[in-house]
Amino acid sequence: MDIEKPSNKTAGKPIQCRAAIATAPGEPLVIDEVIVDPPNSHEVRVRIICTSLCHSDVTFWKMKDFPAVFPRILGHEAIGVVESVGENVDGVVEGDVVIPHFLADCTECVGCRSKKGNLCSAFPFKISPWMPRDQTSRFKDLRGETIHHFVSVSSFSEYTVLDIAHVVKVDPTVPPNRACLLSCGVSTGVGAAWRTANVEVGSTVVIFGLGSIGLAVAEGARLCGATRIIGVDVISEKFEIGKRFGVTEFVNSKNCGDKSVSQIIIDMTDGGADYCFECVGLASLVQEAYACCRKGWGKTIVLGVDQPGSQLSLSSFEVLHSGKILMGSLFGGLKAKSDIPILLKRYMDKFYNVVLDFCMLSSRLHDYRLNRMVTYYCQHIFDNTSSGLMFLFQELELDKFVTHEMKFEEINSAFDLLIKGKCLRCVIWMGE
Amino acid sequence: MDIEKPSNKTAGKPIQCRAAIATAPGEPLVIDEVIVDPPNSHEVRVRIICTSLCHSDVTFWKMKDFPAVFPRILGHEAIGVVESVGENVDGVVEGDVVIPHFLADCTECVGCRSKKGNLCSAFPFKISPWMPRDQTSRFKDLRGETIHHFVSVSSFSEYTVLDIAHVVKVDPTVPPNRACLLSCGVSTGVGAAWRTANVEVGSTVVIFGLGSIGLAVAEGARLCGATRIIGVDVISEKFEIGKRFGVTEFVNSKNCGDKSVSQIIIDMTDGGADYCFECVGLASLVQEAYACCRKGWGKTIVLGVDQPGSQLSLSSFEVLHSGKILMGSLFGGLKAKSDIPILLKRYMDKFYNVVLDFCMLSSRLHDYRLNRMVTYYCQHIFDNTSSGLMFLFQELELDKFVTHEMKFEEINSAFDLLIKGKCLRCVIWMGE
Ligand SMILES: [Zn+2]
Ligand SMILES: [Zn+2]
Ligand SMILES: [Zn+2]
Ligand SMILES: [Zn+2]
Repeated sequence: MDIEKPSNKTAGKPIQCRAAIATAPGEPLVIDEVIVDPPNSHEVRVRIICTSLCHSDVTFWKMKDFPAVFPRILGHEAIGVVESVGENVDGVVEGDVVIPHFLADCTECVGCRSKKGNLCSAFPFKISPWMPRDQTSRFKDLRGETIHHFVSVSSFSEYTVLDIAHVVKVDPTVPPNRACLLSCGVSTGVGAAWRTANVEVGSTVVIFGLGSIGLAVAEGARLCGATRIIGVDVISEKFEIGKRFGVTEFVNSKNCGDKSVSQIIIDMTDGGADYCFECVGLASLVQEAYACCRKGWGKTIVLGVDQPGSQLSLSSFEVLHSGKILMGSLFGGLKAKSDIPILLKRYMDKFYNVVLDFCMLSSRLHDYRLNRMVTYYCQHIFDNTSSGLMFLFQELELDKFVTHEMKFEEINSAFDLLIKGKCLRCVIWMGE
Repeated sequence: MDIEKPSNKTAGKPIQCRAAIATAPGEPLVIDEVIVDPPNSHEVRVRIICTSLCHSDVTFWKMKDFPAVFPRILGHEAIGVVESVGENVDGVVEGDVVIPHFLADCTECVGCRSKKGNLCSAFPFKISPWMPRDQTSRFKDLRGETIHHFVSVSSFSEYTVLDIAHVVKVDPTVPPNRACLLSCGVSTGVGAAWRTANVEVGSTVVIFGLGSIGLAVAEGARLCGATRIIGVDVISEKFEIGKRFGVTEFVNSKNCGDKSVSQIIIDMTDGGADYCFECVGLASLVQEAYACCRKGWGKTIVLGVDQPGSQLSLSSFEVLHSGKILMGSLFGGLKAKSDIPILLKRYMDKFYNVVLDFCMLSSRLHDYRLNRMVTYYCQHIFDNTSSGLMFLFQELELDKFVTHEMKFEEINSAFDLLIKGKCLRCVIWMGE
């Protein structure tokens, strides 16, 4: 077999490189040499530049039973450079900078063509150990034993193979240690506020669980112009960090005395919140979030993953009489190929430039001191227009999500930090 | 006490007139003389012209326990003429033709001012035996005993008193035996498709239960330009009547063999319907409706009233991963004061006139033969625009809902017809 170390002429040949392999539930990842096959039809092979750690990686690392499988290459938040492309690949060529995404966006099926949702019907989401199109693996160890994929990404490897439905080409000038966050967590939270809920300017938002997803929801709600962002968590210290992401008020659900969280929120908001996001993954909290919503139009958006088989129970009477809306949000309702570049632009453009453009264009604002007052003006100018406009005038602040950066060799420390709740996002540099 | 028979000078005085009184659960209504007090502040007294019978009247006539109370004047679908107005009444004067509505629209509270819902926060919906503002009654019998109100309407009386939040002024030229249907049932169904679900042109709709509400949903979906309207019922004969309201296909849920209704619907629609309406009032059917919806964006709209205390159970996994939306619809999501006049205009304008206007205005259609082909054109022209436009070019066909008309004295026969499923809407003329 013709196996080479990576070079300019690797296309069409297997690549030998390093990967962090999950060998058994909860056991430290093993960094070892693996063989990465060339991309098949509709696939690209990508050299990973940065990857970051998300809670789902930890979940499927700890999990003992199916859909957990071993050995497996975890990782699904990343950015990389296309090393080579298979047949039938349009729009991406060798050298392109790309972000993988676990939720397919084939752009052709009825689901991907619809403006109303983001679920691909050609490649529905599942925790699969294989490539999505032919249900086989592109990874093996040096003895030829199969290593499994994870949610069509498997980024804890120097090289990985991605289906074209799971990859989006991005501006090559983006800082990779920031852009990789849009691969999963930040997009999921920001998108839930922006695309799924369509949070309106001036509205009141409640977020259950101020982990990184909840904080990303806060960031999204802030970008959409929400006035009140109420965090709910069992750890009061989360309020301090939450403030940096737009959280304006806090309820510790352990210190509610005789009252339920929903009673407290309903009192605080004089009738309930416009939008409630459940980011913990407990059916009972979804019910509490539903109860927190304002009658008439309150939306409950479910982002948290509960145990398999768990049931959500709502009163039929309340569903009928409350006018409330219940919806789930997978990958923040984002269509990866069109929305990830928009979010990246919101990060790259920064706030002031965009506002300056706007001022020039509109000639409506004559104060160019360009401080936060402009936010205030924008809010009032656009108060009755769609939140989309508000969104366009705020910077998506990715930097504050990155609390740690480390080398690939230290990946087990990153797991440690995340499990102990000591980091938001830890970016891992794969090295040359 | 200064009690007069109705005359030109009844304002400010009690009126003695006839009403059909529910005296005990399930007992025939008794037509008897009652005293109707003059309107208090924020109230109007109305002479009822027509009233029709709705299933909720039957429900609260049969019901033995609270919120059922006796003696009570039922009835909540009606049209009438204002006899006199109390203090602090704006926009309605003596002689105005008005339609009462059980769901308040005070136009001033946060709920009524919002564009996002139709639930009044000043006067939340409840099955109350009193007037909404001061929790007292305007009805008594000739011995002075209190007779109770029903959902702020009580239209089975020659005169009734209505809070200004529960009445909308309408075009006085409307045929009263059609317009009265917009007081509850037809508005509830048509509105659920139009306002709550916002059914789009070309979409697929499933309706559980082809009673009068379900048929009104079909009528609304047809007006919005739905292409496929699938009725689900246990009585196959309902398909024939359903066709007149736009139903294009039918599933008898008793004849599904090994399959569930949702499996059959998913097969028929190649993945599920865009909108599913539950009009029966069974939590288990809401779950089935939810299962029938297309992943990615399918909406389940709950209209049916289940037993008190019943719980709706959904899989947490499906809520998160399906992208489906669950919402209730009370009074079809309509804001009574603004939307009932729009629906009435859709009935009055008729289809051809509106299309003619449109053709003249737009000069885009050069075939004025004005047959159903125009519908086809409109659909294609507006295919990618909001369903609101489609809605504006179709006639709301109220006539076909009215299967019977009778005199006030025959009201117990109307109950009989409705209970036996022999009528859709029976209009009762109160007489001079
Ligand atoms: Zn993730
Ligand atoms: Zn697709
Ligand atoms: Zn009714
Ligand atoms: Zn109101």
